[in-house]
Amino acid sequence: MRTMEWQNGTVITIDQTKLPLETVTLKITTVSQMAEAIKNLRVRGAPLLGAAAAFGLALAAYHSKAGCTSELLAELEDAAQVLKSTRPTAVNLFWAADRVLAKAQGFSGSVEALKTLVIQEAQKIADEDAEANLAIGKNGAELISDGDTILTHCNAGELATVEYGTALSVIRAAWKQGKKIKVIATETRPLLQGARLTAYELKRDGIPVTLITDNMVGYVMHKHLVNKVIVGADRIVQDAVVNKIGTFTVAVLAYEHGVPFYVAAPKSTFDLAHTSADVIIEERNPTEVTHFGAHPVAAPGVGVLNPAFDITPLKYVSAIIHENGVYYKKDFPNFKTNTRV
Amino acid sequence: MRTMEWQNGTVITIDQTKLPLETVTLKITTVSQMAEAIKNLRVRGAPLLGAAAAFGLALAAYHSKAGCTSELLAELEDAAQVLKSTRPTAVNLFWAADRVLAKAQGFSGSVEALKTLVIQEAQKIADEDAEANLAIGKNGAELISDGDTILTHCNAGELATVEYGTALSVIRAAWKQGKKIKVIATETRPLLQGARLTAYELKRDGIPVTLITDNMVGYVMHKHLVNKVIVGADRIVQDAVVNKIGTFTVAVLAYEHGVPFYVAAPKSTFDLAHTSADVIIEERNPTEVTHFGAHPVAAPGVGVLNPAFDITPLKYVSAIIHENGVYYKKDFPNFKTNTRV
Repeated sequence: MRTMEWQNGTVITIDQTKLPLETVTLKITTVSQMAEAIKNLRVRGAPLLGAAAAFGLALAAYHSKAGCTSELLAELEDAAQVLKSTRPTAVNLFWAADRVLAKAQGFSGSVEALKTLVIQEAQKIADEDAEANLAIGKNGAELISDGDTILTHCNAGELATVEYGTALSVIRAAWKQGKKIKVIATETRPLLQGARLTAYELKRDGIPVTLITDNMVGYVMHKHLVNKVIVGADRIVQDAVVNKIGTFTVAVLAYEHGVPFYVAAPKSTFDLAHTSADVIIEERNPTEVTHFGAHPVAAPGVGVLNPAFDITPLKYVSAIIHENGVYYKKDFPNFKTNTRV
Repeated sequence: MRTMEWQNGTVITIDQTKLPLETVTLKITTVSQMAEAIKNLRVRGAPLLGAAAAFGLALAAYHSKAGCTSELLAELEDAAQVLKSTRPTAVNLFWAADRVLAKAQGFSGSVEALKTLVIQEAQKIADEDAEANLAIGKNGAELISDGDTILTHCNAGELATVEYGTALSVIRAAWKQGKKIKVIATETRPLLQGARLTAYELKRDGIPVTLITDNMVGYVMHKHLVNKVIVGADRIVQDAVVNKIGTFTVAVLAYEHGVPFYVAAPKSTFDLAHTSADVIIEERNPTEVTHFGAHPVAAPGVGVLNPAFDITPLKYVSAIIHENGVYYKKDFPNFKTNTRV
């Protein structure tokens, strides 16, 4: 089953804040419900956010009472604004909303035909994500050897995408090839996507997984317990990979220990018109750090930093796996001159 | 008030697992109560564990019904075994127990006189720890400049010692000198000593403190938000500093960013007869990682690593602050030849 599906004017997905203890299905029918789900991380993961934005516009179109295409177009533009204001870092969200909007803006025909076009384009974005992730798995599996222990951070799994995952697609593909691999998953504070989601997905698929706290990454590398690192990405710019907070810490440790550090991401994650200086890092609520769920754990009144992402300069990245192949170190300089990859 | 005090056959201390939400005083009167408190981290921090072991033997002496010194000595030896079997990594615990035991073993006189001797030696160990930590603060403050932002990991504060702290003694001394410093405290998973204890101590003293998750260390260094790192130590061997899990991760990040990495520890933490290969790293209960308190947070059944400490090779250490001065890079080679520092 896909992580997100369109069913006649309803978007069916899973509330990822409740996993792994509860499996709660969300039935989203309005743009504001979709925006709420994105803001509160019920729906998360850069590729899935692309599909979420596209399906959000599909919901706006499907349920619209607009009498003419210009009215519908105005509604779609408003809906795109709402969806794009939810989270500032993952580029897939903007990319998908803009792609659907551009398609709609370039259309001339009836209101009903425009509605159909928007819904089809959203579905196409979702389908392409699934296909891309399957290809990422195939391309990335070439880099994985029998017996590897692979460390991954956060959740770049099926739950972060429409289907298959990015980093976990590589791991799944290698596993299906019969390579006996093991995974070390970092818990990924503050919201524990590693402990809750990555451990859950891999357990479910029968792939051996060991959970560590984020500050054990140095320990496992020093002990030679890790051969490779694979993570996903929320945005890839000319000079860096933007991904979940803690990714840069893992990358520096991998670099220092000579462990290859791979990023797996579809082309929709690339934003080569920009550099890391242009990226807005979302600062989230301090209570994510001071509390565990509803339970306070920190000294009351303490100041908090809570950036949701960090920036890993390409110096620390060994290769980037995408749906059409793999970019190696030698390819990275092209990111500066070639804004379309 | 001291973190641990002897009052007529009772050891008064604070249950550190309950902080900062509750301040629960422990009144410990038996060796097994002391061992339980150490095992369950009600009492923690390498220097404080030295005092705890010594006072544990003082409790055995004080409450003993032994009729002769050889009987009392046997009881003390049994008590030392119980105390030394609680936690394998912090050397202060072994050092203090052995010091009191050696004093007792070398004694000839009445049972009552031996009891008094043991209690006095335990008190002396506690007093010396407080004095050493005060001196560490004074020596370390020389390394701190006005305007510094100092990152610390775990709790090497007053609560980890009899009084003043080690890393936090340096920070307090610099603050008292009028240097306008700020502190970034890592929360220190799995048991959150940074969020619970370090943030609490610094808030109480009015020193500006910002809490981050452990995986944000790379982020704050990359953003030049940190000038210096100071941590404590559980054991310093010929080639490395053994300290709370996550210390090595911080050290590598500091090294990569050119941020000085200081260790503050009394001489009782030095164990220069050994190397890092000799150190047993305590592996604690997996539920510390998979649960928060009684609440499960990870996917059920996932494998877990939970080492309580890690090893930071001296390559990554800029200086070690102790009660008699500061060891710099140039002094570290002497650790291999000089087993008494």
